[in-house]
Amino acid sequence: MTASPVPLVIDTDTAQDDCVALLAGLLDPAADLRAITMVAGNVGFERQVRNAWLTLNAAGRLGSVPVHLGSRQPIVRPWESAENVHGDGAGGLEMDVTGLAPESEHAVDALVRMAAERPGELSIVAIGPLTNIAAAQLKDPGFASNVKALYVMGGSNNGRGNITAAAEFNFYVDPEAAKAVFAAGFEVVVVPWDPLTLRQAVFGERRLAEIDAMGTPLSDFFTRVCAATLEFDRSVGIDGTTHPDSLTAAVLLHPELVTRSARYHVDVETAGELTRGYSAMSWGVHGLAANATVVEEIDAEGFYRYLRDLLATPTTPNRETTAPPR
Amino acid sequence: MTASPVPLVIDTDTAQDDCVALLAGLLDPAADLRAITMVAGNVGFERQVRNAWLTLNAAGRLGSVPVHLGSRQPIVRPWESAENVHGDGAGGLEMDVTGLAPESEHAVDALVRMAAERPGELSIVAIGPLTNIAAAQLKDPGFASNVKALYVMGGSNNGRGNITAAAEFNFYVDPEAAKAVFAAGFEVVVVPWDPLTLRQAVFGERRLAEIDAMGTPLSDFFTRVCAATLEFDRSVGIDGTTHPDSLTAAVLLHPELVTRSARYHVDVETAGELTRGYSAMSWGVHGLAANATVVEEIDAEGFYRYLRDLLATPTTPNRETTAPPR
Amino acid sequence: MTASPVPLVIDTDTAQDDCVALLAGLLDPAADLRAITMVAGNVGFERQVRNAWLTLNAAGRLGSVPVHLGSRQPIVRPWESAENVHGDGAGGLEMDVTGLAPESEHAVDALVRMAAERPGELSIVAIGPLTNIAAAQLKDPGFASNVKALYVMGGSNNGRGNITAAAEFNFYVDPEAAKAVFAAGFEVVVVPWDPLTLRQAVFGERRLAEIDAMGTPLSDFFTRVCAATLEFDRSVGIDGTTHPDSLTAAVLLHPELVTRSARYHVDVETAGELTRGYSAMSWGVHGLAANATVVEEIDAEGFYRYLRDLLATPTTPNRETTAPPR
Amino acid sequence: MTASPVPLVIDTDTAQDDCVALLAGLLDPAADLRAITMVAGNVGFERQVRNAWLTLNAAGRLGSVPVHLGSRQPIVRPWESAENVHGDGAGGLEMDVTGLAPESEHAVDALVRMAAERPGELSIVAIGPLTNIAAAQLKDPGFASNVKALYVMGGSNNGRGNITAAAEFNFYVDPEAAKAVFAAGFEVVVVPWDPLTLRQAVFGERRLAEIDAMGTPLSDFFTRVCAATLEFDRSVGIDGTTHPDSLTAAVLLHPELVTRSARYHVDVETAGELTRGYSAMSWGVHGLAANATVVEEIDAEGFYRYLRDLLATPTTPNRETTAPPR
Ligand SMILES: [Ca+2]
Ligand SMILES: [Ca+2]
Ligand SMILES: [Ca+2]
Ligand SMILES: [Ca+2]
Repeated sequence: MTASPVPLVIDTDTAQDDCVALLAGLLDPAADLRAITMVAGNVGFERQVRNAWLTLNAAGRLGSVPVHLGSRQPIVRPWESAENVHGDGAGGLEMDVTGLAPESEHAVDALVRMAAERPGELSIVAIGPLTNIAAAQLKDPGFASNVKALYVMGGSNNGRGNITAAAEFNFYVDPEAAKAVFAAGFEVVVVPWDPLTLRQAVFGERRLAEIDAMGTPLSDFFTRVCAATLEFDRSVGIDGTTHPDSLTAAVLLHPELVTRSARYHVDVETAGELTRGYSAMSWGVHGLAANATVVEEIDAEGFYRYLRDLLATPTTPNRETTAPPR
Repeated sequence: MTASPVPLVIDTDTAQDDCVALLAGLLDPAADLRAITMVAGNVGFERQVRNAWLTLNAAGRLGSVPVHLGSRQPIVRPWESAENVHGDGAGGLEMDVTGLAPESEHAVDALVRMAAERPGELSIVAIGPLTNIAAAQLKDPGFASNVKALYVMGGSNNGRGNITAAAEFNFYVDPEAAKAVFAAGFEVVVVPWDPLTLRQAVFGERRLAEIDAMGTPLSDFFTRVCAATLEFDRSVGIDGTTHPDSLTAAVLLHPELVTRSARYHVDVETAGELTRGYSAMSWGVHGLAANATVVEEIDAEGFYRYLRDLLATPTTPNRETTAPPR
Repeated sequence: MTASPVPLVIDTDTAQDDCVALLAGLLDPAADLRAITMVAGNVGFERQVRNAWLTLNAAGRLGSVPVHLGSRQPIVRPWESAENVHGDGAGGLEMDVTGLAPESEHAVDALVRMAAERPGELSIVAIGPLTNIAAAQLKDPGFASNVKALYVMGGSNNGRGNITAAAEFNFYVDPEAAKAVFAAGFEVVVVPWDPLTLRQAVFGERRLAEIDAMGTPLSDFFTRVCAATLEFDRSVGIDGTTHPDSLTAAVLLHPELVTRSARYHVDVETAGELTRGYSAMSWGVHGLAANATVVEEIDAEGFYRYLRDLLATPTTPNRETTAPPR
Repeated sequence: MTASPVPLVIDTDTAQDDCVALLAGLLDPAADLRAITMVAGNVGFERQVRNAWLTLNAAGRLGSVPVHLGSRQPIVRPWESAENVHGDGAGGLEMDVTGLAPESEHAVDALVRMAAERPGELSIVAIGPLTNIAAAQLKDPGFASNVKALYVMGGSNNGRGNITAAAEFNFYVDPEAAKAVFAAGFEVVVVPWDPLTLRQAVFGERRLAEIDAMGTPLSDFFTRVCAATLEFDRSVGIDGTTHPDSLTAAVLLHPELVTRSARYHVDVETAGELTRGYSAMSWGVHGLAANATVVEEIDAEGFYRYLRDLLATPTTPNRETTAPPR
C-alpha cells in the first residue's frame, strides 16, 4: 500500500474486539489514528478506558494517541451493559495506570474540532453506541459534511440481532443516537452483525489455535481479551470469536476486503415494544432514498489473514501487565 | 399415503398462491378440506371470494366445500391491499357466479364450531392476515386448545419482509391479530417469507415453463393466477413466482417435506414506527419460552414436484370461464 | 316522561357503579332494557356475572332480562383487573345462584343481532372495556350504523386518568378495542372520567348518608356495593363514591341532565410507553373531523336526585342474600 | 426585595412571550441574568436570535448579556416550527444588527461551564424545547447537581396540549430531550400550559388595553411582539395573550406568586402514535417517585401587575427599530 495513511478516529466502547480494532488503528501502516474517543457501551465506562490503555500498551503505543472521554450514557435511556458477554472486556489483564490521563477535551468536542479543521479528510470508525457521533452532529450541524466517511458497526441487515432477536447491541443501547446519525447526512458505511459478521467474521477453533500458536505478545493479548466473548458465543451457538469491530476498521483501511456492498435506506426503531434498536435496512424496493452503504460480503479469508498478520507484529509493551493464569 | 386424510380448514385472502393452496386442499388425497374461510387481505373482499369460486371451479369442486365469509377488515387498523402485487389475484379469469353463495354462518363462528365439535382433530391453514383466527380465539377461549394445529404463513425468520423491510404482508395488515394469535396457546407451525419462501419456494423460468407445458386445465389456471405476481416479483428482484401459501398447506399434508424446523418464541410488533407487523422470532437464547415451530428448511425439489403433480391432476371445471389472451 | 321507553343494552364489567347503572336500566320507566352483555374488566369474569345476578335480584327482576356472556379478555392484551379498586365489586353480597343461567348466545352475536333486527332503534350503554363493541363491529361492518347511539363511559377529556396518569381504566384495559370503536362510525356519546365524573358525579358524605338513611333494600344494596370503591377513592384523594357508569345510563335516559357537551375528535393511544389507553380528545382546533359528542357538564344535583329517587324505588328481591356485617 | 439577585440563564426559542421573559431577566432587580442561550423552537433559529437582539435593545441592554447559540435542531427529530402561531415572533420589528455577535462558546458548553463554576448557584429558566439542557447533561453528568434549580415551561398538568390535544409545543418538538431532562435529577419546577397558563396567565382585552395605554417603549414593544399570537389565540378560542414563558421567569424571581404547587412524577412520551411529547404528570397515587414540583396555581392578578409594572420601566433602546404600522 503506497497510498498515504487514512486519517481516522476510533469511537469505541472498548472491550474484546474493540481492542483488536484499536490494534488495527495503531499498528496498520495504512492507518493514521488521530484519536480514540470513548463512549458508554459494553462495560463500565472506567473499565473501558482501562481497556483502551491496556490496548495502547500492548501495541507499545501508550501516550502516542490522545484518548478523549465522551458520553457516559445514552442520549435518553439508561445505560445497559454487555458485561454478561464480555466480562471486563480484557480477559482480566491489569496494569498500573498511574500517570495515564485522558485529554481534557470532551470526545464530542474533539470530534467536532478535528472534523472541522480539515473538512473532508477525517474518517470515523464508530464501533460502539452512536451517542458521541449524534452529539457531535447536534453540536455542529456541519459535522456530517466535514467528516469524510463514517464507518459504523451496528445493526443487522435483515438478520438476527444479538441482544434481542430484533436488535444488535450498539443500536439497542442508544437507538435515538443511531436514528439521528442515519438522518444526518453522513457518508455512512455499515458493517452489520448478521449476516456479515456471523458468517464471515467468526474465528473458529483452527484459526484461534493458529493465532495462539504465534506466541507474540499481541497474539497472547488477543487470546486473553477474546476469551470471555468466546465462551459466551459458544453458549449461544456461535462457534468462535466474533470480530465486527476490527472488521469495521479493516474495511475502511483495506476497502478491497469488501467483495459486495449495496446502497440501502437505513433507519432505526426507537418506539417499538419488541424492536427497540432494530435497524430497518431497505434494499431499494420500498421507495426510500438510500443513505448508507451496507457491506454484504467480504473476503473472509483475507480478513482473517489481515488480523493474523497484524497480531504477528512484534511489539514491546510500555508497561508490565499482570494476568490471571490461562 | 395410507393414513386417513387430514381434516382442515383453509383461512385465506384468496389471490395468486392462495389459489394454489386451495387446489392442494381440494385435490390432494391427503387432505379432507372441511371449509374455506375468507379474511380481508390481498385484494378486495368480494374479489377474493370470486377467486375462491374460480379455484373451486378449476378443481371441478364448485359446491363441494362450504365457503364462509369472515372479517372484512383488520381488528383495529384500516385494511391495506396488496393489489399492486397481485392485481385481481386471478389473472383476469372471469366466471358467471350466478347461484353461488357463501354459507350464512360467519367464518369465525364456523371455525369456533368446527374446532369445538371434534376437539383436537381440526387443523387450520391460515394463509392470510390472522384476523379470523384471533376473533375466533376471542370468542371462544377454548378455541386454541380445540384446534389440533395452526399452520401460519406469515412473518420472516430474522430476514427480509416484503411490504416493508421489517414486515411480511399478512402480519403487517393485522399485527394485533397476529400478536394475539401467538399469545393464545395454539400448536403453531410457521412458514415464514424469508428465508424459507424466498430461498426454497420460488419457481423460476425453467419450472414455470415445465408447468405450463403440461397443458392441463390446472397448469393453465396456475400460469394465469401467478402472472401478476411474477411480474411484481421480478420488479423487486425475485426471479420467479413465490409459493408461501401452497407451501404452508403442503407442510401440513406432507410433513416429510420439512427437512429442518426449530422451536421459537414468536411475537409480533404492533407499536413500532418502522416495524409494524415485524415478527420477532427468538431462537432460544433470549430466555423466552417457545410458542411456535418455525420451518427453516424444506425439500425444495420435493415441494416443486408436489405442486407440479398436483397441477397435472385431470379436472373438469364446473363452469366455463373467460380469460384475457395470454 | 311520556315518551316511549328507550330500547337499550347495557354492556358491563359489573362491579360497583355498574350495578347502579343496571338498576337504572332495570327500574327507570324511561328504559326498555333488552339485554345485559358482559365483558372482561373490573373483576373476574364469573364474579362480574354473579354481580349482575345480584343486581337483577336486588331489583326484583331476576330472569326478566337476558344476560349474555361476551369477551373474557381484551382483544390483544392480557386482562388486567381493578380488584384493588372494587374488591369483589358487590361488597361481599352472596346469593344462591342455582338455576340462573346466561343465554347461550354470545354477547357479541346478541349485540349484532339485536342491532340488525331493528336498525336505528337500539342504544348501547357501554360501561366496561369496549371489547364486545369492537368485536361486534368486526363481525358486522353494518353494526355501527344499525345502532342508534353508543354511550361510552371511558377516557378523560384532557384530564387525569385513574389507572395511570394518562389513562382511564376502561380504555386502558382494551385500548385496541377503544381505538377501533372510535374509528367505526358510531353515533358516540362519551362520559369521561375527568373532569366530568370527578367534578360532578362524586357523592360525598352528606349524600351517602342521605341515601343510606332511606333504608330501602336498594339503598342498602347501593351502600354495600359502593363501600370498597369509596375506601379506595378516599385513599387517592377523591372524597366520595364515583358514578361514571350510572351517569352514562342516566344521560341516555334523561338527556336533559346534560348541560354542556361538544363535538370532539376522539382517538385512543395503543402504542405509547406511558400512554396506553390515553384518549386523545381534540376540541376542534387540530383539523380533525369530529366523531363523538363528549359530555362536558351535567346537572350534578339533578343526577344525584335521579339516583337517590331510583334507590328509593320499593323492590322485593327474588332471592335471599347474605352479606357481611357493615 | 432585599435578597441578592438570582443568578440565572434563560434558555429560549425567542418569540413573543420569550421576549417578555427576557425583559424580566433583564430589568427585574431580582434577576442577575448571566447569559441567554438559544435553542431551536418557535421560529427559524436566526430569526430567534434577531428577536433576542431586539429584546435586549428594547431593554436598552444590547451588549450587556452574552448570547450563546445552541442546538439548531431537536436531538433526534426534524425541527418543527410554530410560525403559524407566532409569525416572526417579534411583530415585524426590524433593526440593523451590524456588529452584534453571539459568543463563540456554544450554549451547551456555556451552560455546563457556568453551572460547574459555582455549583448550586445558577438557576436556569428553560422556556423552549429542552434540547440544550439535555445536551448539557449528556456532556456533563454532574450538570444537574451543579444547577440550583431548573424552571421549565412545558407540558400540561393533565390538561389540554396546544400543538396537539395531547402535547404542549416545547415538549412536542423535542420529546427525547424532555424525557432525558426529567430523568436526570434536576431540581425541577414546571410551569405547565394547561391549566395554569390557560387559566391564570392569559391577558384579555382590558389588560392589554391598560398595558398599551401606558405608552412606554416597552408597552409598545409588548403589544407588537404579542400581536400575532393574540390573533392565533383568538382563532383557537383563547381570549387573550398567553404568558407561560414570562410566568416561568416570574415564579423563579418571585416565588410568592405561587399560591399552590405540588410534587409530581413527570415523564414524557416519546413513542406514542397520538401522544408524542405528552407529559405524564402523576400526582402521587401511582407509586412513582416525585421528580418535579409543578406549579398548580398562582396569584394571577399579582403576575399581571408584575408584568405591567415591568413594562412601565423607562428604557432607552440602544438602536433604532422600524416597525410596520399598527
Ligand atoms: Ca464495540
Ligand atoms: Ca394469502
Ligand atoms: Ca364499568
Ligand atoms: Ca418559548
